[in-house]
Amino acid sequence: MSHPTPLLDKIASPADTRGLSVEELKQLAAEVRAETISAVSVTGGHLGAGLGVVELTVALHHVFETPRDILIWDVGHQAYPHKILTGRRDRIRTLRQGGGLSGFTKRAESPYDAFGAAHAATSISAALGFCAARDAKGETNKVIAVIGDGSMSAGMAYEAMNKADETTKQLIVILNDNDMSIAPPVGGMSAYMARLVSSAGYTSLRKLGKQMAGALPKPLQKAARKAEEYARGMVTGGTLFEELGFYYVGPIDGHDLDALVPVLENVRDFSGKPVLVHVVTQKGKGYAPAENAADKYHGVVKFDVVTGQQVKAAAGPPGYTKIFAQELVKQARLDDRIVAITAAMPSGTGLDIFAKEFPSRMFDVGIAEQHAVTFAAGMAADGMKPFAAIYSTFLQRGYDQVVHDVAIQRLPVRFAIDRAGLVGADGPTHAGSFDVGYMGALPGMVVMAAADEVELAAMVATAAAIDDRPSCFRYPRGEGLGLEMPEISQPLEIGKGRIVREGTSVAIVSFGTRLGESLKAADLLAARGLSATVADARFAKPLDIDLLLRLAREHEALITVEEGAMGGFGAFVLQALAAHGALDRGLKVRTLVLPDVFQDQDKPDIMYAQAGLDAEGILAGALSALGMDNVSAAGRRA
Amino acid sequence: MSHPTPLLDKIASPADTRGLSVEELKQLAAEVRAETISAVSVTGGHLGAGLGVVELTVALHHVFETPRDILIWDVGHQAYPHKILTGRRDRIRTLRQGGGLSGFTKRAESPYDAFGAAHAATSISAALGFCAARDAKGETNKVIAVIGDGSMSAGMAYEAMNKADETTKQLIVILNDNDMSIAPPVGGMSAYMARLVSSAGYTSLRKLGKQMAGALPKPLQKAARKAEEYARGMVTGGTLFEELGFYYVGPIDGHDLDALVPVLENVRDFSGKPVLVHVVTQKGKGYAPAENAADKYHGVVKFDVVTGQQVKAAAGPPGYTKIFAQELVKQARLDDRIVAITAAMPSGTGLDIFAKEFPSRMFDVGIAEQHAVTFAAGMAADGMKPFAAIYSTFLQRGYDQVVHDVAIQRLPVRFAIDRAGLVGADGPTHAGSFDVGYMGALPGMVVMAAADEVELAAMVATAAAIDDRPSCFRYPRGEGLGLEMPEISQPLEIGKGRIVREGTSVAIVSFGTRLGESLKAADLLAARGLSATVADARFAKPLDIDLLLRLAREHEALITVEEGAMGGFGAFVLQALAAHGALDRGLKVRTLVLPDVFQDQDKPDIMYAQAGLDAEGILAGALSALGMDNVSAAGRRA
Repeated sequence: MSHPTPLLDKIASPADTRGLSVEELKQLAAEVRAETISAVSVTGGHLGAGLGVVELTVALHHVFETPRDILIWDVGHQAYPHKILTGRRDRIRTLRQGGGLSGFTKRAESPYDAFGAAHAATSISAALGFCAARDAKGETNKVIAVIGDGSMSAGMAYEAMNKADETTKQLIVILNDNDMSIAPPVGGMSAYMARLVSSAGYTSLRKLGKQMAGALPKPLQKAARKAEEYARGMVTGGTLFEELGFYYVGPIDGHDLDALVPVLENVRDFSGKPVLVHVVTQKGKGYAPAENAADKYHGVVKFDVVTGQQVKAAAGPPGYTKIFAQELVKQARLDDRIVAITAAMPSGTGLDIFAKEFPSRMFDVGIAEQHAVTFAAGMAADGMKPFAAIYSTFLQRGYDQVVHDVAIQRLPVRFAIDRAGLVGADGPTHAGSFDVGYMGALPGMVVMAAADEVELAAMVATAAAIDDRPSCFRYPRGEGLGLEMPEISQPLEIGKGRIVREGTSVAIVSFGTRLGESLKAADLLAARGLSATVADARFAKPLDIDLLLRLAREHEALITVEEGAMGGFGAFVLQALAAHGALDRGLKVRTLVLPDVFQDQDKPDIMYAQAGLDAEGILAGALSALGMDNVSAAGRRA
Repeated sequence: MSHPTPLLDKIASPADTRGLSVEELKQLAAEVRAETISAVSVTGGHLGAGLGVVELTVALHHVFETPRDILIWDVGHQAYPHKILTGRRDRIRTLRQGGGLSGFTKRAESPYDAFGAAHAATSISAALGFCAARDAKGETNKVIAVIGDGSMSAGMAYEAMNKADETTKQLIVILNDNDMSIAPPVGGMSAYMARLVSSAGYTSLRKLGKQMAGALPKPLQKAARKAEEYARGMVTGGTLFEELGFYYVGPIDGHDLDALVPVLENVRDFSGKPVLVHVVTQKGKGYAPAENAADKYHGVVKFDVVTGQQVKAAAGPPGYTKIFAQELVKQARLDDRIVAITAAMPSGTGLDIFAKEFPSRMFDVGIAEQHAVTFAAGMAADGMKPFAAIYSTFLQRGYDQVVHDVAIQRLPVRFAIDRAGLVGADGPTHAGSFDVGYMGALPGMVVMAAADEVELAAMVATAAAIDDRPSCFRYPRGEGLGLEMPEISQPLEIGKGRIVREGTSVAIVSFGTRLGESLKAADLLAARGLSATVADARFAKPLDIDLLLRLAREHEALITVEEGAMGGFGAFVLQALAAHGALDRGLKVRTLVLPDVFQDQDKPDIMYAQAGLDAEGILAGALSALGMDNVSAAGRRA
């Protein structure tokens, strides 16, 4: 923290910004920017988005009476400057670390985080809820939602905008248009916003100020006229937003505090209908390495502030994401019906690799999971082999479409479920905890989980081959084991698991990448003189019931292990064993699942240990089943 | 079927309509309308929507080469005339009956049903999938999506429109604007469409025809100019749709075949960008009783064709929906923080009753479940007590919002989950099969199911009282038991079930309204000399583990019964019993759940019998657990 921050040092809370002049706010913004860069250089995290809203953040806290006025950040990954200004500067270097600040807004963390976020496009809906509550209670606080242009491809944002004017007469939506969420933008709305910006220019006119003043109640017109003088760079024209019921203001330069402050002061007291302020910002603003990078430093690891050089991790084995993409490319070379779909995550899902070889067979639909799933279903209905690669947590957005458009129609859509299980620094909002349950409950769905990268590639091949029903395969964030990969993978037999290690007293049945920890647990058991069989289930649906019945018959105890919540793989195993009478004679059975809490961010290994899903936890589960708890406890304490 | 249908009698398939003149098409439409009315008068079902699109249906099949050209109906409840014209007239009087035609479009039923439907706003996404597949294969078939204005409040429709122009250069979307989906429309988009219609008028101009011709490739311009002569009632102006990338045509009178046919012929061969044809229709058109009814005969029971009089069922006990609404009203009188939210189902959820007494505390967000859930979360974050009443099947649309905005933040949103379990005539697309699993997996969520209407009312009171975390309660479609209701209900103790009948050998643990069948099963067991305990679990989360452990300890067998899929209540019971070692010594345990198939429509009683969830099925489950299968089989055959 070499950069001096004399003004920021005096800001204990947003109230301290209220008396500052615009010139002082500019200095404050510069200091907040430096502090943000400094903090993220040691923590890693989302940088570009936060740098883009430094002036906006300063202006909002200056103009509005936060936290009484409700400020809601969409996604929340741009809220680091907000955290710095709202009493969390002393912990800003714990961002995304275990026990530290969340990388998103979080209600439990601060009264200034009025509504937690992490998934896109929730802010206007939440803001309308605050407005409705305020209006019902007869209170007068303001409500502001700040939403990025990328979120505008999500149907949820539209649903909320569509209802805004009917819900309240006082709401401020700040459209933070940086023309880039993570990847370049897609869709008609994005093109529309670009037209708004390009047709207006910033310097051209003051028309908007006039028009706005005309729409205001009389007593406010005078103030508005004054504001008008500052309202450079504003122009009407947001017809689409106006047709939906908003009063449109903009576009204005989101880095120009001379414009931002008076415009925000102006809309602050506006009522009669919701206002949308179109603010244009630059992702990565004010930090040259970020401004010059293609992704504007959307998400970074630790880096050197002076050079912008990111600290490269020692080269490890390829990640699961990459393995998925590479195998999909191989399969696609053999079958031109294979196409790929992403919802605004071409790089995150690895499909940028696929797009390089098959640009016309790759579809990025934007942040629009509902559309992504049914779009895939339509392609499957017309004979294509769509792979929809969507993170577990985001597939929740398209769940009804999975049920209604894919599963009920038994259409062979393939879901590549990335980020399955715990995800580390992104925390509970990004954990992929529920997909095994919510997919496995669906009739006809094939549900797979990869134990390692060779298995993942085989599951890609399997999904490609399954053409009479839907299927999905899940795999975690992070590196594989470094296994040698085959030239091309062959499909697995559907519904068949495999024995990885033969034993006699305890059967450990793993579903997913806990297989490695399960094998370690078997070693720990062996060290106690207990012989364990370890199986890789591969399929949660259809279950390998023959294998399960055999394991139940031949072992005193059976433990299931998975990277998911209750109601998933272990639950299905128990229900199947019960139905076959395999529990009747007594089987010491335990299902090890994620704990029934939303675990806070930390390193994945630590989180899995907390969850009891590391080798020690599996050992403890097995010993407990065998009635040997004390031995276990003693063993662990020793 | 008294109305003569000489022309319709000659139509074996849509191909037979292609040579007809517009005058003949008018006669055909009249006959299809009469046949539709006649059929629905004996089957009941959706009538108003179908009557509104008779001319459109005839015109589409006349102009397009279905099924080679892909015709996708949104929701599909307006597709009865389509079914009559596409080879299913002989079975049209089996609509919505067991073994009969589906009340929606269904791929398995006909090649003319290119994509099944039932939930709103899926059609454009699916159509884009067909377009992408067509374009990839280099084929030339047309793709048409017909979507109602009501569906336009759904974010999914927006997500698809936003991507249309980037996905394909040839797609036809028919916006069927009848200004009414089920209830009167809501939202800015709806108001916008109304402005388009009112500002244009039908008779005013031919501008659009001219403009359209100008946009066409040269060879088509001549044909277009000819069409222009017919293009009465067309006008440009759909700026919002054009901003999203569509070529807008309309509004045109959807009952005027002289206009419809040439316009459709014209857009059929248009390419270069997606076209949106704005067609204005009247719900219930051509049948006076429907036209005059407030809901335009959206959904009807059997009725007399001449008088329109619907056959009233013998007055039974109040339905669960009504009981919910009445109790919510009572609770809301005591607590002005209680508010209610519906997603376009004020009558279906009973919230019209609530709105009558508390109009300002009721929010209809339109078909927009994602927004509904997060809007509720926002209100809860500001101290209100929101009850979001959403059918189980539609709550799937807001699942990510339940996880991310409600559960992770532990906000006290109350979900009133109507239509839980099997729903009868509406079939698999409307079954509420998965909510226990997908809600029960969420940390902190309280999950209840009502065994009868007194229990339901108590659960409304319970949810009102739970203010530190989210909760939900599920209840089925249909009538209660006719129990006497208390003046006002008191909250239940959270996580506590109840013993309804004490026995010794088998414990039947019911979750939901299978309690009655469970008690009957206990009687059947008693007749065989077997004594059964029957418990009402009330809570799937938190589970009453003390009760379950006691039942497990004191009985030879334990059977769970629920109106839901695998991975739900029974699964949670097994996982909890396993964790407590209660299965170690051998418990004959079975979880009775919905079968792992999507059950076709029938009467709910028949469907539950098929599912093995009636008294006989529960008996069979219990006897099987006790190793007495043959006795059971013999007993049932006797």
